[in-house]
Amino acid sequence: MQASNSAKAGVLTAALPYIQKYWGKVVVVKYGGNAMTDETLKKAVMSDIVLLSLVGIKVVLVHGGGPEITSTLKALGIESRFVGGLRYTDEETAKVVQMVLCGKTNKDLVKLIAGSGGKAMGLSGLDGCMIQAKKLEGEVDLGFVGDITKIDTEPILATMNDGYIPVIATVGADEKGQVYNINADTAAAAIAKALGAENIILMTDIQGLMRDVHDPSSLIPAVEVSELEALIKGGVATGGMIPKVRCCEDAVLGGVKKAVMIDGRIEHSILLEIFSDEGIGTMIYKGA
Amino acid sequence: MQASNSAKAGVLTAALPYIQKYWGKVVVVKYGGNAMTDETLKKAVMSDIVLLSLVGIKVVLVHGGGPEITSTLKALGIESRFVGGLRYTDEETAKVVQMVLCGKTNKDLVKLIAGSGGKAMGLSGLDGCMIQAKKLEGEVDLGFVGDITKIDTEPILATMNDGYIPVIATVGADEKGQVYNINADTAAAAIAKALGAENIILMTDIQGLMRDVHDPSSLIPAVEVSELEALIKGGVATGGMIPKVRCCEDAVLGGVKKAVMIDGRIEHSILLEIFSDEGIGTMIYKGA
Amino acid sequence: MQASNSAKAGVLTAALPYIQKYWGKVVVVKYGGNAMTDETLKKAVMSDIVLLSLVGIKVVLVHGGGPEITSTLKALGIESRFVGGLRYTDEETAKVVQMVLCGKTNKDLVKLIAGSGGKAMGLSGLDGCMIQAKKLEGEVDLGFVGDITKIDTEPILATMNDGYIPVIATVGADEKGQVYNINADTAAAAIAKALGAENIILMTDIQGLMRDVHDPSSLIPAVEVSELEALIKGGVATGGMIPKVRCCEDAVLGGVKKAVMIDGRIEHSILLEIFSDEGIGTMIYKGA
Amino acid sequence: MQASNSAKAGVLTAALPYIQKYWGKVVVVKYGGNAMTDETLKKAVMSDIVLLSLVGIKVVLVHGGGPEITSTLKALGIESRFVGGLRYTDEETAKVVQMVLCGKTNKDLVKLIAGSGGKAMGLSGLDGCMIQAKKLEGEVDLGFVGDITKIDTEPILATMNDGYIPVIATVGADEKGQVYNINADTAAAAIAKALGAENIILMTDIQGLMRDVHDPSSLIPAVEVSELEALIKGGVATGGMIPKVRCCEDAVLGGVKKAVMIDGRIEHSILLEIFSDEGIGTMIYKGA
Amino acid sequence: MQASNSAKAGVLTAALPYIQKYWGKVVVVKYGGNAMTDETLKKAVMSDIVLLSLVGIKVVLVHGGGPEITSTLKALGIESRFVGGLRYTDEETAKVVQMVLCGKTNKDLVKLIAGSGGKAMGLSGLDGCMIQAKKLEGEVDLGFVGDITKIDTEPILATMNDGYIPVIATVGADEKGQVYNINADTAAAAIAKALGAENIILMTDIQGLMRDVHDPSSLIPAVEVSELEALIKGGVATGGMIPKVRCCEDAVLGGVKKAVMIDGRIEHSILLEIFSDEGIGTMIYKGA
Amino acid sequence: MQASNSAKAGVLTAALPYIQKYWGKVVVVKYGGNAMTDETLKKAVMSDIVLLSLVGIKVVLVHGGGPEITSTLKALGIESRFVGGLRYTDEETAKVVQMVLCGKTNKDLVKLIAGSGGKAMGLSGLDGCMIQAKKLEGEVDLGFVGDITKIDTEPILATMNDGYIPVIATVGADEKGQVYNINADTAAAAIAKALGAENIILMTDIQGLMRDVHDPSSLIPAVEVSELEALIKGGVATGGMIPKVRCCEDAVLGGVKKAVMIDGRIEHSILLEIFSDEGIGTMIYKGA
Repeated sequence: MQASNSAKAGVLTAALPYIQKYWGKVVVVKYGGNAMTDETLKKAVMSDIVLLSLVGIKVVLVHGGGPEITSTLKALGIESRFVGGLRYTDEETAKVVQMVLCGKTNKDLVKLIAGSGGKAMGLSGLDGCMIQAKKLEGEVDLGFVGDITKIDTEPILATMNDGYIPVIATVGADEKGQVYNINADTAAAAIAKALGAENIILMTDIQGLMRDVHDPSSLIPAVEVSELEALIKGGVATGGMIPKVRCCEDAVLGGVKKAVMIDGRIEHSILLEIFSDEGIGTMIYKGA
Repeated sequence: MQASNSAKAGVLTAALPYIQKYWGKVVVVKYGGNAMTDETLKKAVMSDIVLLSLVGIKVVLVHGGGPEITSTLKALGIESRFVGGLRYTDEETAKVVQMVLCGKTNKDLVKLIAGSGGKAMGLSGLDGCMIQAKKLEGEVDLGFVGDITKIDTEPILATMNDGYIPVIATVGADEKGQVYNINADTAAAAIAKALGAENIILMTDIQGLMRDVHDPSSLIPAVEVSELEALIKGGVATGGMIPKVRCCEDAVLGGVKKAVMIDGRIEHSILLEIFSDEGIGTMIYKGA
Repeated sequence: MQASNSAKAGVLTAALPYIQKYWGKVVVVKYGGNAMTDETLKKAVMSDIVLLSLVGIKVVLVHGGGPEITSTLKALGIESRFVGGLRYTDEETAKVVQMVLCGKTNKDLVKLIAGSGGKAMGLSGLDGCMIQAKKLEGEVDLGFVGDITKIDTEPILATMNDGYIPVIATVGADEKGQVYNINADTAAAAIAKALGAENIILMTDIQGLMRDVHDPSSLIPAVEVSELEALIKGGVATGGMIPKVRCCEDAVLGGVKKAVMIDGRIEHSILLEIFSDEGIGTMIYKGA
Repeated sequence: MQASNSAKAGVLTAALPYIQKYWGKVVVVKYGGNAMTDETLKKAVMSDIVLLSLVGIKVVLVHGGGPEITSTLKALGIESRFVGGLRYTDEETAKVVQMVLCGKTNKDLVKLIAGSGGKAMGLSGLDGCMIQAKKLEGEVDLGFVGDITKIDTEPILATMNDGYIPVIATVGADEKGQVYNINADTAAAAIAKALGAENIILMTDIQGLMRDVHDPSSLIPAVEVSELEALIKGGVATGGMIPKVRCCEDAVLGGVKKAVMIDGRIEHSILLEIFSDEGIGTMIYKGA
Repeated sequence: MQASNSAKAGVLTAALPYIQKYWGKVVVVKYGGNAMTDETLKKAVMSDIVLLSLVGIKVVLVHGGGPEITSTLKALGIESRFVGGLRYTDEETAKVVQMVLCGKTNKDLVKLIAGSGGKAMGLSGLDGCMIQAKKLEGEVDLGFVGDITKIDTEPILATMNDGYIPVIATVGADEKGQVYNINADTAAAAIAKALGAENIILMTDIQGLMRDVHDPSSLIPAVEVSELEALIKGGVATGGMIPKVRCCEDAVLGGVKKAVMIDGRIEHSILLEIFSDEGIGTMIYKGA
Repeated sequence: MQASNSAKAGVLTAALPYIQKYWGKVVVVKYGGNAMTDETLKKAVMSDIVLLSLVGIKVVLVHGGGPEITSTLKALGIESRFVGGLRYTDEETAKVVQMVLCGKTNKDLVKLIAGSGGKAMGLSGLDGCMIQAKKLEGEVDLGFVGDITKIDTEPILATMNDGYIPVIATVGADEKGQVYNINADTAAAAIAKALGAENIILMTDIQGLMRDVHDPSSLIPAVEVSELEALIKGGVATGGMIPKVRCCEDAVLGGVKKAVMIDGRIEHSILLEIFSDEGIGTMIYKGA
């Protein structure tokens, strides 16, 4: 018992320098992957968010809602059209995305945070015209997929100053009120830059960037932003990891101190990242 | 041209005493009925809300979302069960209600307000635990239909102080996170009472309370709250009007200066109510 | 009735974009001419001022008081001396100017605003040393006519922040306490510049700048500031209009977005100017 | 020199407890009598006001303007009508009173304070509807002589908070904008009560209340408010002193800590009153 | 490693409800005993204080300085006189007490807190006249031992609002500036009451109140305040523990939610007390 | 009596321009010399400090404590070691310096200010890490004598904003918590520079800089900072005066408007300096 007390005190005491380091700073957490579907992980993440918020860190929770969108589209009998392997967002789909992200995922997170004793406010990119967007122009026409033109940080800052944790659903709109589906990683990076965040944490379903995907010990714990290009070219970051790596790059080049891809499958991965020097996953930073 | 200018100036000047009367006061508008389905009326309402807000009136927009809930339930193939003529809200339905109200109706209104040049924040009773509820106990079990236990005005006040028009979707939750469908009229009355509103305006699809429903000239423009009982017993208020009259009664007895049932089918009915002595529809007040 | 209601709502709704445009901006109104002697016009102006103030526009009312000064001088048996056609302000006259402007005209306006339900504070250039002046040096010695050396905006800003409409009598003083008569147009322009006003409105007794003074249709609705010189040389602005045009020029070159000479003989000319795109009278602006 | 330095330091040091006593407290000074006509006394009073204000005392200067009103009426050829020995204020006279008090006396004081390095704001009872009045009803009809119905302290408090010394001309108005001449002693007492002043100082042209008007040593330095009745009945306070004594009585019964009638003919009489235990003149207080 | 991470996350997560419970509340820690002499314990206490402060708890550190006073008196060759077993505080001793407590103990603590990354402000009861005292009257004359007459919380509140941890040396003074030695437990209780603290923690050198001092398992974890009398009479609290128990009683009866006597010999005993339901030591509370 | 009143009023009135000049400005007073040992002078200084503070001057009192340190070291039997004529501060001595300055001198001054009716807060360079220092490197090793590396003005500004007079003991510390003895003149100059003070006043035991030390009339009342070098070389400033002159030079070159060395042996020398044009002692300023 005494031993356990001592261990407990040790852990709390060890947290002190990290609390001091992040106190009053903005940390943007992009929530997604398994951590968003597994009930135990879900609760752990919300508890972590509330804890960070209580110890003086300004946490902003940004989320998409892939699986729930898919299942709702299916339940509504809306067929998904794919263009070059990517889902095409037609008008009807865009409306469902808005409805599910803002009405289901977002409010469920707000309730979960309340369940952990936190006070959250569920916002979307539409509220206070926070995420302003236009049609994403690219080689392939993806329909109403949005390209962020401006982040208005006022609704986020006001919410934080009012004492609430902002939980943000990543839909945006243009001046005519047309809604766009916005990639949540991209939105999180844009928000982190606009807020001058200390840190952006992307929750993924992998351990981090690894030199050999079959060898857990080959995890790259930290990488300078200018080296990312080589890692991508060298095949270390592949497939779905590439856009995530690009988001990190974008955030760090835009002034965010560090961007971390953590393994959301580990319970309390956010706490473990924040409350240690080594962190978990792969951290991207800008060298002097 | 000169004549038109003079008429224009006359209208603006005539608005002065009403602006003075309501300046800095809270007016809760319960949005519903035809005004919520007709595109022209919709825009007119939002424009009215923005105008009132700009001239210094603290407008709070409260809404339900009947038709959209029904159509989404249908599209999802969820059958509606009725108990004693009232829709039963099972768990699945409650989830759809939350999703549609918070994700579709609410955010669409936020966008419409933005389209009129206003700044709105879409809230639900879940955000900041604003509407706290428990299961409504009555003669018939209606499932997850909620009975309001507490309104936390903090999220509403904070939103207004931050310079946004609060748009509120009327779902609530209990301490365990169970969501309840809350009658929007009831919620609007509770919010008006909690905010110490000057005025609650219920948008309906009738002209107001009428002595003879077939005679437009029999409209009752104003009625003292203690006379409502007699009007109900006398059959002046019947059917779906009775709960609306009860909401007005509740609000007025709870300290709201006046409660008005207006005809939402008339364009700019809110402006006409606010900017005249006689108003439109039926006003319920408390005598000295 | 319905028609009239619809017209009423139309006018109010049409005002919305103009309220949004001017909300929180400073508009300096130089009050003078017929609008200052005709009782009906007087009340209309004060009502306009109160209305603008209520819808969030920061109105500053600046006035001289020609006719009342003249009649008081006459009643006091003080003879007016003229030099080169201009009235010479001797010490005794300067005292009367101060007394009439600050004690009669200014306070009468404050009362009229109160009569329209507004809250006004009557200031002069002497209060809080707002208008600091020295003797105006020119070809002709005009006695105690002042040349503004500094506008201290603090008393004006404080008054507005305290929730009062500032009504300003244009006398100034030097460090020794010598009072100077200051041209009200000049003072209004200086105040508009010092406050970084959006707009200065000069009330005159003509329709505006006209290419042919006998042809109402020849009104010049808008003119770029650099073209003014040509208009003066071309005889479009003559006589007493020239100094007014110069004031507009001075204001616009000093950063005020637009300067408008409106016809004060039209009832509610201020509202008509603010609440329309075309405005009335002649607007002077700075091109890109 | 050394001696003089020592004396100087002694005086300054002796002022310390009085500054501490009055720091942050409101002191209303009713300015009048010789102190208002003699140039040397005038400057001394203004210098005193500025000094008190700088050492943290919230001074409010209230003034009438008898002699200047009389001379202006005369210059304007307006005959004064007397009723029962009191001047009758007809409409024309009321207008002159407003003009002279607000435009001449008030602004001249503002300039004098500026000359002593202070920052003053000249207010009247009309500004911000500060002094609300109705016709004084009495045995004799005195025309537009006012009876105070309400003091709105907001304009005074705002002015003080903005860092200006409020200088108040005692005219008032009713809701229709009719101006009334208000006795300055009465107004000062009403203002002192409304502000919860620590002290009201009435400047007079006598030494104070004296048991024998021919014997300077018979000055009554202090008197409990309940003893005033006896002093009046005993003939110690007579004639013009009686209304002044009544004002003091009114102020003290209304919560002002002390009311002092000082001899305004003595230079710096205000400083001498404030910076000593014994004060000068006669002090009226409320016993336990 | 993974295991250790999981344990770490578990401890941090377990701290969440306690942080929520104490967030924004005042906790007064009376520092003393072994925790004040052992270097390791000292650092642990300061680290705890900084941690609590960072997670939003308003910690006030109150200390005496027994051993350092004794050794300094000895070094100065001042003999201690004892009366009835208690040290007599003569004038010379009172001066040494002030010097050692305020100059040595207090500032050493401030430095230690700085060493843990905290920002502290060292105050004494003399600063801002925080602890006002008179001579303690009792059966025995103890010289300049003080009895608290008033706690002025302003210096403490100001220090906390300015973002510093207040560290308070318990000397007080009377109006003449005579310094008194104040028992630190008593002062801590008085400060806790004056601040409306949630909690007062007294650091002692025993495990807590024990039914059998030789049986560690007989520790009384919690006791209702009304039962203290019986415990004292029953000999459970004896000797030096009695005044400590009385301080707890005084604090709890004066409105402090709970008073806890903890074993300061255990490292991080403060964290263990705050971050668990059972706490450590003996807790005294007031039953419903 | 009348004469005396007149003289009194004269002195107070004469103080007006000086109060205006220094109102809201920071004046740093370095307290030392005879003024610190003579009881009458002590009280006079504290009374001056309170008076200046009340009339709106932001006074910061900085002190060393030479004689008290010496006598305590002696009483503790700690021998003073001298190196090159200067006292060597070993670790034990540094501790005594901290104890005496912060615990005795500092708190005694706080009590004296309270005795004059002021509210003071006794700070040291350790509180809030205000004076950060490192070992002074020079030709001779003086032990723990400190060289200021940074002044954190936050604790001083917070104390002033909270309404207290800051009294500062000049010890500092490095990051490891090692305490250093800091020359009080040097610290006062550094604090004055960091605060952007208007004025630094050094209290000395001489009349000022004199061309002939035996001729009082040879006092140099004012000297431009660039001429100091010549005065030192010319032998006008010698011995212990040289470092004081260097402090004044440092302060003035660092932005302090004027630095004055005054004769602290004269009662109320601070008042005499502040409340006159000529001041007393020698003033050092920076020419245009």
